[in-house]
Amino acid sequence: MTKQLLAAVALAVIAGCAAQTAGNERPLPNAKVILIIGDGMDDQQIAIARNYLVGMNGRLVLDGMPERVSAQVLTVREDNPAIPNYVGDSASGATAMATGVPVAEGRIGTSAGTDRDLPTVMEMAIAAGLRTGIVTTSRITDASPSSFIAHISNRYCQAPEDMVKVDEMFPQDSTDCSADYKSNGGLGSIAEQIADSKIDLIFGGGSSDFDAFIDGVDSMTVGQTASANGFTILRSPEEIEEAPSNGRLMGLFASGHLPEKLQGVDGQKAEFIEHVDGKPVWPEPFECEINPSFEGVPTLAEMTSAALEVLGDKQGFMLVVESASIDKASHYWRPCGHIGEMAQLDETVQLALDYAARNPETLVLVTADHGSSAQMAPEMTELSLQNAAPPGRFARIRTPEGAIMGVSYATNDSPYWEDHTGVHVPLYLSGPRANDVPQFLNQTDVFHIAATHLGLSDSWPGQ
Amino acid sequence: MTKQLLAAVALAVIAGCAAQTAGNERPLPNAKVILIIGDGMDDQQIAIARNYLVGMNGRLVLDGMPERVSAQVLTVREDNPAIPNYVGDSASGATAMATGVPVAEGRIGTSAGTDRDLPTVMEMAIAAGLRTGIVTTSRITDASPSSFIAHISNRYCQAPEDMVKVDEMFPQDSTDCSADYKSNGGLGSIAEQIADSKIDLIFGGGSSDFDAFIDGVDSMTVGQTASANGFTILRSPEEIEEAPSNGRLMGLFASGHLPEKLQGVDGQKAEFIEHVDGKPVWPEPFECEINPSFEGVPTLAEMTSAALEVLGDKQGFMLVVESASIDKASHYWRPCGHIGEMAQLDETVQLALDYAARNPETLVLVTADHGSSAQMAPEMTELSLQNAAPPGRFARIRTPEGAIMGVSYATNDSPYWEDHTGVHVPLYLSGPRANDVPQFLNQTDVFHIAATHLGLSDSWPGQ
Repeated sequence: MTKQLLAAVALAVIAGCAAQTAGNERPLPNAKVILIIGDGMDDQQIAIARNYLVGMNGRLVLDGMPERVSAQVLTVREDNPAIPNYVGDSASGATAMATGVPVAEGRIGTSAGTDRDLPTVMEMAIAAGLRTGIVTTSRITDASPSSFIAHISNRYCQAPEDMVKVDEMFPQDSTDCSADYKSNGGLGSIAEQIADSKIDLIFGGGSSDFDAFIDGVDSMTVGQTASANGFTILRSPEEIEEAPSNGRLMGLFASGHLPEKLQGVDGQKAEFIEHVDGKPVWPEPFECEINPSFEGVPTLAEMTSAALEVLGDKQGFMLVVESASIDKASHYWRPCGHIGEMAQLDETVQLALDYAARNPETLVLVTADHGSSAQMAPEMTELSLQNAAPPGRFARIRTPEGAIMGVSYATNDSPYWEDHTGVHVPLYLSGPRANDVPQFLNQTDVFHIAATHLGLSDSWPGQ
Repeated sequence: MTKQLLAAVALAVIAGCAAQTAGNERPLPNAKVILIIGDGMDDQQIAIARNYLVGMNGRLVLDGMPERVSAQVLTVREDNPAIPNYVGDSASGATAMATGVPVAEGRIGTSAGTDRDLPTVMEMAIAAGLRTGIVTTSRITDASPSSFIAHISNRYCQAPEDMVKVDEMFPQDSTDCSADYKSNGGLGSIAEQIADSKIDLIFGGGSSDFDAFIDGVDSMTVGQTASANGFTILRSPEEIEEAPSNGRLMGLFASGHLPEKLQGVDGQKAEFIEHVDGKPVWPEPFECEINPSFEGVPTLAEMTSAALEVLGDKQGFMLVVESASIDKASHYWRPCGHIGEMAQLDETVQLALDYAARNPETLVLVTADHGSSAQMAPEMTELSLQNAAPPGRFARIRTPEGAIMGVSYATNDSPYWEDHTGVHVPLYLSGPRANDVPQFLNQTDVFHIAATHLGLSDSWPGQ
């Protein structure tokens, strides 16, 4: 954290405390926030998962949460932050939630246009002496987790070697974070910033980012810096139990992102529909199965359970938990992938609600950073007799209740990946004041809700 | 209404009253329900309309309603009603809301597989002596309005001449409602059933269905039957004011559906993106303008205002109001069309809330029958440098706040129309017990909420 940012965080905390004194609601002793982010988890995703996992008449754990409102996704243009960009990404979405400020796509904890570091609710929590943690199924340097603890202009500056990179195939993904090199007085890459952070625990994938050598020093890795800064680095979930209970923990359980739990049988996914003599050849329906690569991978619920164990119940905390691959599976046409990651999220929601039942000072929030491409369309179009078929990639999923569900992906026709969508996203709440929020608010209000609950602010939405 | 159905309605009302006596909540004196249906109004539709009509940071009237929950769309297969059909239509959606029973696509107030007539909440209201009304921007014989007051196996049996029809181009739309001919002891076509109904008012389009001769009698039109049954038929909104205040009213303000309020400038809509030398030619952004055909057409709010005037405030009533062409515009790739119909709905929601403020025994419900194809995608895909483009029809809309919004339609590639989607839909509530509903319920619960509020049942969801 730069001195400037440190001052901003301190000011934010002081302003919050001052406001709190004047406010109507006093923070609960040891108030806790568990913020669960389903990356790309819009209403289509939830409906698709519900039909597969529990059936049309079934209920997800999410469905039983006491309150559900909607949050407007706010993203702005980098070249003119007064103008909306209606479709955001995980960086802009998570930064909006972490800082309360709408930013441009790709930005991590920094302002659009001006590149100022924005204080995050997690940094405010650390400054106020609360405990903090992040759990994700992605690399821990990915956009959503890092938005709560890092500040950089480009989400792809994840490891030291990513700071300046020319991507010839995808020029739009080239990076120039040279101003943020530590040798230039910056905070360094996202991995370096995490290694330097005061977070109590961070679990997920991305060990390759920490095996990289730090900028300018080829004798020390980012992971070694983290160790020097007090982190115990865990490479497998079994090590969590043996870790020192009073230390700070960094769990790196995969080289990259953690594998998805489910896949289509034999790896089947959505494909473009072929036409023979002008007639579409409808794809055979398939079921989902456990992804063989998921063997031995800790589940999101297992990691979250360990995190809650470490954070304990004696102190206030902010824990961010992300089911990251709802989005990634949608990008790459894997319906069973996003259904399985929704299952992981739903299991984790149950765990969080159980924790909150024992610790009623806990506010559980479940939301998404943005919408994704998957859309539940008819398993065979109404116009199949007229030889019509979906123009994008399409899968027919055989659900356990004996029906067939169509899932379409059609934001672009590239061989690379799908885009996001701009729909508002759900925000589920359970815990103190959960029923005291407007039914429609901004994604930035997640910051205000969490910060107010933790006593770091007094900016509860609608007050 | 057949004797059998009459008995079923009476039984339903008696059972409701008996249950009511035992229930915790007594119906309010002169309880009123205004149920506003946005046909196809899913979260994507609302988000698209919000961005255009009030801007990314703006608020629709809908957004300010005190409660918003989600409703699972329930549709079943005709050949096996135990098996879900995950994507429904207006007939199955509106019938689920009108009767509390999930049915198959295309069915109006009749059961899947067995073709039994199902009592509707509106018929129960009539039987209990309450006042009733329907207002729609579609033909009044269209699926959503007719599901509240008619019973037939096929939604396309709208006028006598539609009862048995072979459609060579779209064989799936052929009809055989011959069992429902009046001459066969049936209730007749939807138009005939409306003409025979006891509804107090019904406003919309579809005069051509009432100018048709009734089955077997070529000297009397359906409209003349309606007149003989006590309806005053109005052909223009000006006639509403001159109509007898104590009579029943049928307003037929267009031959077919009422025209949509907005269109793309010069009629522009979404189109497939052309490619030249492998490069997509991005469509020019366009704005929305008033549709010239909308001149002189009553707005949904004007019709609803007249309906509320006629229904008055001295008696309990059930009023169903439908903004029908959110769906129709989505089917035919007209983004400004569905944005304009969302504007009509939102204006009408304000009117209903104003009425409810003066008459607090009024419960206002706003929901949709099913999802539709429109999806807010990036105005230019992330992969535009790689020459990717949306594979379906696509429009770039220039919004009044100076940004560009992409709207994609890609459920099928036919030249005819788009399909629906299977996402759950929002249900907004304002009025007595509005905050006393589960945040996730079934579409059939709209029946239970309306019937319970009106004292016709005691089946409030979640109790």
